[in-house]
Amino acid sequence: MSVVAVGSVAFDTIETPIGRVERAIGGSATYFTLAASYFVPVNLVAVVGEDFDDEYRGVLAGRGIDLNGLKVVKGGKTFFWEGRYGQDPNERESLVTELNVFDGFRPELPEAYRKAKWLFLGNIDPEIQLEVIGQIEGRPLVGCDTMNFWIERKPDKLLAVLRKVDVFFINDAEARQLSGNINLISAARTILEMGPTAVVIKKGEHGAFIFTENFRAFVPAYPLEEVVDPTGAGDSFAGGFVGYLAKAGELHELNLRRAMYYGTVAASFTCESFSVGRLKSLSQEDIQDRFKALVDLVHVQLE
Amino acid sequence: MSVVAVGSVAFDTIETPIGRVERAIGGSATYFTLAASYFVPVNLVAVVGEDFDDEYRGVLAGRGIDLNGLKVVKGGKTFFWEGRYGQDPNERESLVTELNVFDGFRPELPEAYRKAKWLFLGNIDPEIQLEVIGQIEGRPLVGCDTMNFWIERKPDKLLAVLRKVDVFFINDAEARQLSGNINLISAARTILEMGPTAVVIKKGEHGAFIFTENFRAFVPAYPLEEVVDPTGAGDSFAGGFVGYLAKAGELHELNLRRAMYYGTVAASFTCESFSVGRLKSLSQEDIQDRFKALVDLVHVQLE
Repeated sequence: MSVVAVGSVAFDTIETPIGRVERAIGGSATYFTLAASYFVPVNLVAVVGEDFDDEYRGVLAGRGIDLNGLKVVKGGKTFFWEGRYGQDPNERESLVTELNVFDGFRPELPEAYRKAKWLFLGNIDPEIQLEVIGQIEGRPLVGCDTMNFWIERKPDKLLAVLRKVDVFFINDAEARQLSGNINLISAARTILEMGPTAVVIKKGEHGAFIFTENFRAFVPAYPLEEVVDPTGAGDSFAGGFVGYLAKAGELHELNLRRAMYYGTVAASFTCESFSVGRLKSLSQEDIQDRFKALVDLVHVQLE
Repeated sequence: MSVVAVGSVAFDTIETPIGRVERAIGGSATYFTLAASYFVPVNLVAVVGEDFDDEYRGVLAGRGIDLNGLKVVKGGKTFFWEGRYGQDPNERESLVTELNVFDGFRPELPEAYRKAKWLFLGNIDPEIQLEVIGQIEGRPLVGCDTMNFWIERKPDKLLAVLRKVDVFFINDAEARQLSGNINLISAARTILEMGPTAVVIKKGEHGAFIFTENFRAFVPAYPLEEVVDPTGAGDSFAGGFVGYLAKAGELHELNLRRAMYYGTVAASFTCESFSVGRLKSLSQEDIQDRFKALVDLVHVQLE
């Protein structure tokens, strides 16, 4: 089962205590599609400028990602972000954000994408997320991410999106903000009532929870001795999660629990290099080995 | 196999967003011994004042804790602490600390305790921790806790203690401070080189890691919808951990992994009420049910 993913493709200039990279490929849809590409065919819907040359396209095409939905604006410039991380990978400072062609992006799904069974909506304007859902024929399975900006600016539209979402990804601070609950379990319960079948609360280096009506589960982040660059970890998590789930089929507990682990695996590889250095070149064995290491981390024998 | 535990017994006045309790029983050794008492016989070494009356003694005696090592100073007052928690249970403010009889506490182990196979040293002056180790005949298994105060004031003595410790409990901030490493895996490796067989790094609501030369493992905190009072959670963790391990016998991986789960179970019960309200009155079924719920939280089926 293939996945259609809508989000940003960007150039990132990133500085961390370990080093610096300039105009590397980034953006939520880049991380998402690369992570998902290890599980199922992926179709990308995004916009770039003319400066997004063949070398950059090759990163995505090299993983077999369908780029028919990647719109190129002639004479336009690709979304650019510059940020810096301190010693604590959870604290980052945005130095430059130039939306460029991403400003006013109205995704149009190619005809071939409109029968998608799985749709992932990256963190974009919830009005546009609704438009995209409307472009799909029938009722797809929908994964969705958002951010504090939209919770504050367009809460009603976001709630309208949530009524059509199957798996909702949100970080802990945003879950508290959206629900008005400080406690994450209460927050998850409140958000579940907004519509999603499953709520995944991402806590960065502290792992992630999933809550549904029937069960709750937790997976720790994979412990890394060196976090080179955490940019895109959350989007990679969503990519590994949705990619695995689209491959596995049904949204039942067993699959959702495994999806949590595959999401974590993808996020951990992303953190091991700048940009998508590691994420773009994994083997199935790399993924399975880390999945097993992660399971082993929490393993305990009952008595 | 019984455990001898040395630490503080105190009166705590605690305010949290949920309520307030005055002069409730507290102190590191109180939480530790109660948690450990569900697994093995426990011998307490601590000091209190005359104001520590039969009602308070009864809390400990009611769990079968041996109080022959609980020294009562005539005319003295018991260690008193007052603190307040905000909405975030990880942030607490100390309002009053009156050491009283705990000031200058020099533990003397009753003869019957000196053949102990398991010794737990709560967070006290490392010089005194060394003295206590010296009072045990032979080479006991030693669990040990500390805090930033001793890392700053008596690093050399603490290092001398660590060379005699089997399981060292420390929180994440203290692990970074003691090791000089920001990354917790690097921190754990550095601390392992100081002597302990196992280092347990406690991260509060974010769970705990254990590191040895041969394996590493993680257990999440048990998710609670309402944290009534987190005081003593870390000491309860150590009590459940050491209690289980003393019962299980050898310090091998299988037992250490289970000990992490039992420590977490004990800590979760402590957080569910003020003081030791819940911790003092558990059934073996309560403990087993929560152990299973915690295992279920991270459970995943391999493919």
